[in-house]
Amino acid sequence: MLNGSAPRVVVLGGGFGGLTAARALRRARVQVTLLDRRNHHLFQPMLYQVATAALAAPDIAMPIRKVLRRQRNATVLLAEARAVDLARRQVLLYDGALGYDFLVIATGVTHSYFGHEEWAEHAPGLKDLADAFRVRARVLLAFEAAEREPEAQRRRDWLRFVIIGGGPTGVELAGALAEIARKTLARDFRNFDPRSAEVLLLEGGGRILPSYPPELSASAVRQLEELGAAVRTGAAVVNVDADGVELRGGERIAARTVLWAAGVQAAPLTRGLGAPLDRSGRVLVLPDLTVPGHPQAFVIGDAAALEQDGRPVPGVAPAAMQMGAHAAASIERVLAGKPSLPFRYRDKGALATIGRRRAVAHFGRYRFSGFLAWTLWLLVHIFFLIGFRNRFVVLFEWAWAYLTYQRSARVILESGRNLGGGACPPAGQSRKSASP
Amino acid sequence: MLNGSAPRVVVLGGGFGGLTAARALRRARVQVTLLDRRNHHLFQPMLYQVATAALAAPDIAMPIRKVLRRQRNATVLLAEARAVDLARRQVLLYDGALGYDFLVIATGVTHSYFGHEEWAEHAPGLKDLADAFRVRARVLLAFEAAEREPEAQRRRDWLRFVIIGGGPTGVELAGALAEIARKTLARDFRNFDPRSAEVLLLEGGGRILPSYPPELSASAVRQLEELGAAVRTGAAVVNVDADGVELRGGERIAARTVLWAAGVQAAPLTRGLGAPLDRSGRVLVLPDLTVPGHPQAFVIGDAAALEQDGRPVPGVAPAAMQMGAHAAASIERVLAGKPSLPFRYRDKGALATIGRRRAVAHFGRYRFSGFLAWTLWLLVHIFFLIGFRNRFVVLFEWAWAYLTYQRSARVILESGRNLGGGACPPAGQSRKSASP
Repeated sequence: MLNGSAPRVVVLGGGFGGLTAARALRRARVQVTLLDRRNHHLFQPMLYQVATAALAAPDIAMPIRKVLRRQRNATVLLAEARAVDLARRQVLLYDGALGYDFLVIATGVTHSYFGHEEWAEHAPGLKDLADAFRVRARVLLAFEAAEREPEAQRRRDWLRFVIIGGGPTGVELAGALAEIARKTLARDFRNFDPRSAEVLLLEGGGRILPSYPPELSASAVRQLEELGAAVRTGAAVVNVDADGVELRGGERIAARTVLWAAGVQAAPLTRGLGAPLDRSGRVLVLPDLTVPGHPQAFVIGDAAALEQDGRPVPGVAPAAMQMGAHAAASIERVLAGKPSLPFRYRDKGALATIGRRRAVAHFGRYRFSGFLAWTLWLLVHIFFLIGFRNRFVVLFEWAWAYLTYQRSARVILESGRNLGGGACPPAGQSRKSASP
Repeated sequence: MLNGSAPRVVVLGGGFGGLTAARALRRARVQVTLLDRRNHHLFQPMLYQVATAALAAPDIAMPIRKVLRRQRNATVLLAEARAVDLARRQVLLYDGALGYDFLVIATGVTHSYFGHEEWAEHAPGLKDLADAFRVRARVLLAFEAAEREPEAQRRRDWLRFVIIGGGPTGVELAGALAEIARKTLARDFRNFDPRSAEVLLLEGGGRILPSYPPELSASAVRQLEELGAAVRTGAAVVNVDADGVELRGGERIAARTVLWAAGVQAAPLTRGLGAPLDRSGRVLVLPDLTVPGHPQAFVIGDAAALEQDGRPVPGVAPAAMQMGAHAAASIERVLAGKPSLPFRYRDKGALATIGRRRAVAHFGRYRFSGFLAWTLWLLVHIFFLIGFRNRFVVLFEWAWAYLTYQRSARVILESGRNLGGGACPPAGQSRKSASP
């Protein structure tokens, strides 16, 4: 609250948590600054559909400044926070600093290769659009390579797809890859039958979808097998290289395409805070979501570690949105001289899609699988996507663009750090992109 | 015609010319192999709309093997032709070679910086999807940089957009950029008014759209000015760097964003043929589109230089498609023991769009501009795009995908040369992409 101007609220990250916090403050007498190193909010739950070529990037990405264009008290900056000085109440950028009265850290998670970063190049994960394009390219290029591979054994290796990690993302990827091989590409090649491709989902634990009830895990396995994907549990990966993966016990699985859906860790920023962290770098926040000793600094979403009734609040979009709304409400309460309140996560249930007409869902004691769960999944995601002019709004998009001047594809596949650079290197060339 | 098997026709390039040639041979008793270093056919006339964020990449790109999936006598290979040995009738790949009985070279054009390749990084051109993403990122990032730039003079430089080259692409880009600044982004920023952005189209010659009648060039200038873009003719660019462009006469124009639409040259392959070339590397073909001395080798589309009635056949999609059909017909005639016929280009007219409700068109002696021409442009492009399930097919795309298993976004932003690599580098990181 410097010289009478409105209090400065800085939000780090334009994901579900950060965006919800910023919007929840739209009527508050504060000046909100939302920082993100990308220009777009990503509808994460559909990212695997971009990776599996079902959707185009702009269908699930929306410019953050467009979301907030009408919120007069909000400024969007395409910038990356290098660090936070909690004592001085400053966010340090790569070019300058930003003072704040309240801070909301919503920087989310990135892949974790459990200390084996060298696996990353052989087994890309799926967190942002660049990842999705990389996965899409890997998968499609594997089929192209198979078409050109005369040697049967090597061709089989091109047609073997291994997904590491039996969480929702791994399950979605396995189901989608099986569909691509069995249906999408079925008639596209001359030198092999895409239906001969093998899709293998590896889970280190005892069952896939461990956060779901056991009977739904079993159902997910059945549904994946119907699609033509194989599931192996208790398969701990001890090495990944260009030729495939190695399991504990020494077994090798040859595959030219390995995808990573096994682990996440908090984005690097949290490690420099000097705050207490859990093993994955999440900030152990107080019940009101603030950093111990810093009541004006909130951590929300996947970047926060919080237990409730002895169980961790899950790293899902609904939890992040609830935390964002709670942080915003707390800021308003503090400004009104009231104490902040503890956060309560309300579990609205969980949905995981497996493939066409296949999914699992549980809401409290209600559990569904198959077509009903899939319909539910579809409805829920259509509902949430509408705000992101997805396929169902995109329906009228081009015509609409001419009436409203809106452009839906305003997506930059790049961080704000190297302004002026290109989004992608030119195909097959090495032309540099200019950097001012 | 080796040991009685069907004659081998190899088509290099899956653009308008190559794809038309391959499809025209669907009933011929030949085995067609179409090579392209990309997995997709690109609807070039709409590429500027991807560059200006109006359309998503998959809306104008379609997997070549999907186009030809039902053509049993056609095989599609994702591969790049390194050279052609006309004497041995072999196409040399980076991994192996491909013999042919008939060859159709449809490798198209790439940018030409008139010997100043160092300009490329400062002034990206627009030929493929990677270019389009780079241009899109440059333009959007310039506005983002302006939002963060405190110094007024430097901010103006971020908001000055220079397009070099007054052909159809330059005109389309200038119109679209003016619309983005004036309309799309009008309310998105807090620290400046996007409407203050300057869009400047530089043409070295005496008028823009030189291939159109003079009155349409004049109309195009008026229409661009209505949109808020400025046009300068007789402005020959002698240097381009990170800070802007320098004109003959020494005048400097400061701009952080410069786009190149000035020149093209034939793709490198033609230079190694040992065939007679024009100054831009196009093959000086015989009237039947064959390479002198090699009646089984055709060159079509932008890669071919042919005069008709003393005027060069223009490098436009309709000409390439007509040439593709002619080459296919000639191959069938030769196989039937008949002589090949000379190619005749039938000019169906020309359309250039400038912006919303603005365009120019001429068909023989009919000339339109403004709304009528724009409507015509829209109808023509909608008509041709339908085959590429664009927005108007994409309308029902996602729902459709669940019924037909088709996926419209099967696009790889990468050449077939580095199989296994990622489509884009991860944002702001330097993680390598695996190469088998």
